[in-house]
Amino acid sequence: MGAFTNTTTVRIRWGDCDPAGIIFYPRYFEIFDNATAALFERALGITKFEMFSAYEFAGWPLVQTQARFFKPTRFGDDVTVDSSIAFGRSSFEVEHRLSLAGDLCAECREKRVWIVRDAHNAIKSHPIPEVVRAKFKAG
Amino acid sequence: MGAFTNTTTVRIRWGDCDPAGIIFYPRYFEIFDNATAALFERALGITKFEMFSAYEFAGWPLVQTQARFFKPTRFGDDVTVDSSIAFGRSSFEVEHRLSLAGDLCAECREKRVWIVRDAHNAIKSHPIPEVVRAKFKAG
Amino acid sequence: MGAFTNTTTVRIRWGDCDPAGIIFYPRYFEIFDNATAALFERALGITKFEMFSAYEFAGWPLVQTQARFFKPTRFGDDVTVDSSIAFGRSSFEVEHRLSLAGDLCAECREKRVWIVRDAHNAIKSHPIPEVVRAKFKAG
Amino acid sequence: MGAFTNTTTVRIRWGDCDPAGIIFYPRYFEIFDNATAALFERALGITKFEMFSAYEFAGWPLVQTQARFFKPTRFGDDVTVDSSIAFGRSSFEVEHRLSLAGDLCAECREKRVWIVRDAHNAIKSHPIPEVVRAKFKAG
Repeated sequence: MGAFTNTTTVRIRWGDCDPAGIIFYPRYFEIFDNATAALFERALGITKFEMFSAYEFAGWPLVQTQARFFKPTRFGDDVTVDSSIAFGRSSFEVEHRLSLAGDLCAECREKRVWIVRDAHNAIKSHPIPEVVRAKFKAG
Repeated sequence: MGAFTNTTTVRIRWGDCDPAGIIFYPRYFEIFDNATAALFERALGITKFEMFSAYEFAGWPLVQTQARFFKPTRFGDDVTVDSSIAFGRSSFEVEHRLSLAGDLCAECREKRVWIVRDAHNAIKSHPIPEVVRAKFKAG
Repeated sequence: MGAFTNTTTVRIRWGDCDPAGIIFYPRYFEIFDNATAALFERALGITKFEMFSAYEFAGWPLVQTQARFFKPTRFGDDVTVDSSIAFGRSSFEVEHRLSLAGDLCAECREKRVWIVRDAHNAIKSHPIPEVVRAKFKAG
Repeated sequence: MGAFTNTTTVRIRWGDCDPAGIIFYPRYFEIFDNATAALFERALGITKFEMFSAYEFAGWPLVQTQARFFKPTRFGDDVTVDSSIAFGRSSFEVEHRLSLAGDLCAECREKRVWIVRDAHNAIKSHPIPEVVRAKFKAG
């Protein structure tokens, strides 16, 4: 995928894990959602919260995701998430690779749509602002 | 506390439980939050979502809570939550008692404030509408 | 997929939703995880908790999932999840279709592995017990 | 409370927040649970995961908690949690103060019991090991 990448480190927590002692997999999607926000924050220099006022932006709902899980992780693990992005016109795809001590544990691809609010406060997809794209090229 | 009560039944789920095999206690607060919404839904005959358009209402943020935990619950348990409410002027208190097969497992008291949006879209506390109180008296 | 199906109804909660007012998508995977457990409970007549003592069984970790999201749902929505299962030798696939008032909102396919504990308490994949399969055929 | 303290910084995430745009309060209890683990990790030099093998230890279930919420926080906020601990014989109390830019937003007191597994794998409360207490005095 795209050239722009970001890496975050995440501690897996007791409360993320299930009675088998390993991470409850929906928590991975929370981690990936945070990693997508972190990738934009790195490129744009502002938080997702600030994006709502800085850009024509009302969110990036997920339209599709697929994930594979290779090795479980457990509380106390500090995992690394490498995220890369590729832009379409009104959508973008992010690929996350989550690893522990160099071993790939999970990977995920997600497709999201850039949305804005119309005059009636309804949401609709919208081309990703050029000013946003430009920040990723400069990254 | 107040005379108006409601009872809900909740299944504890695999993903609610931690590596000790018992419920991860923050999940209890999700259950209690749902139980408060269920109590209003029972009295008012509409969901919390519908309350936003039906009443001068922007939410009921928690200002204080205290809880005690007597016996753990685990996935597969169908627990009962008995909730009762007492109204102040702009606030209300709810007491939840969560039990399994007749044994009290947890209890919680919460104090919440009724809020509305002012002209600048900021939130502020507001007297609970009389039409809302009346529905609880009739219950 | 397989002939055995189960349908559950789930209330989307305030706490499942994000600042956009719609469900935060990792919550869908919690719903799907519960729906898989409900499907087995329907076929076997016991809860997942009871399965650990009734069968040679230590869990069904996810190895792969893919999901598509067509329409958002929000707190107060009572959604329907139709789940169907197809068995492999040591794995199974479940397809979930989540709809609101007849409109398909999300769909998900998941592949899981049946695991057991070996003599050293480590987990390993294992053929799904014939007694389990038989219950699904009878359903 | 006790002299031993620890401070952590936590980013409030999009998925921690509700349709009002502020943190969904059960997420605070996840933050406090993590902060208690971080406090022990700081004193003992090992993670909670490692504690299970290093000490006679099977968990620290909550028996009581009370919390007050003064100001809401929202996604993008980096909050500070100051935690302090006081030991009883088989229990301990932790106080957490969560603040944003110097303003106290929430505070919580929790009482937890130190538990171990008996010969039948059942859990029971147990005096906190002296080796654990000593590490806190040295801190």
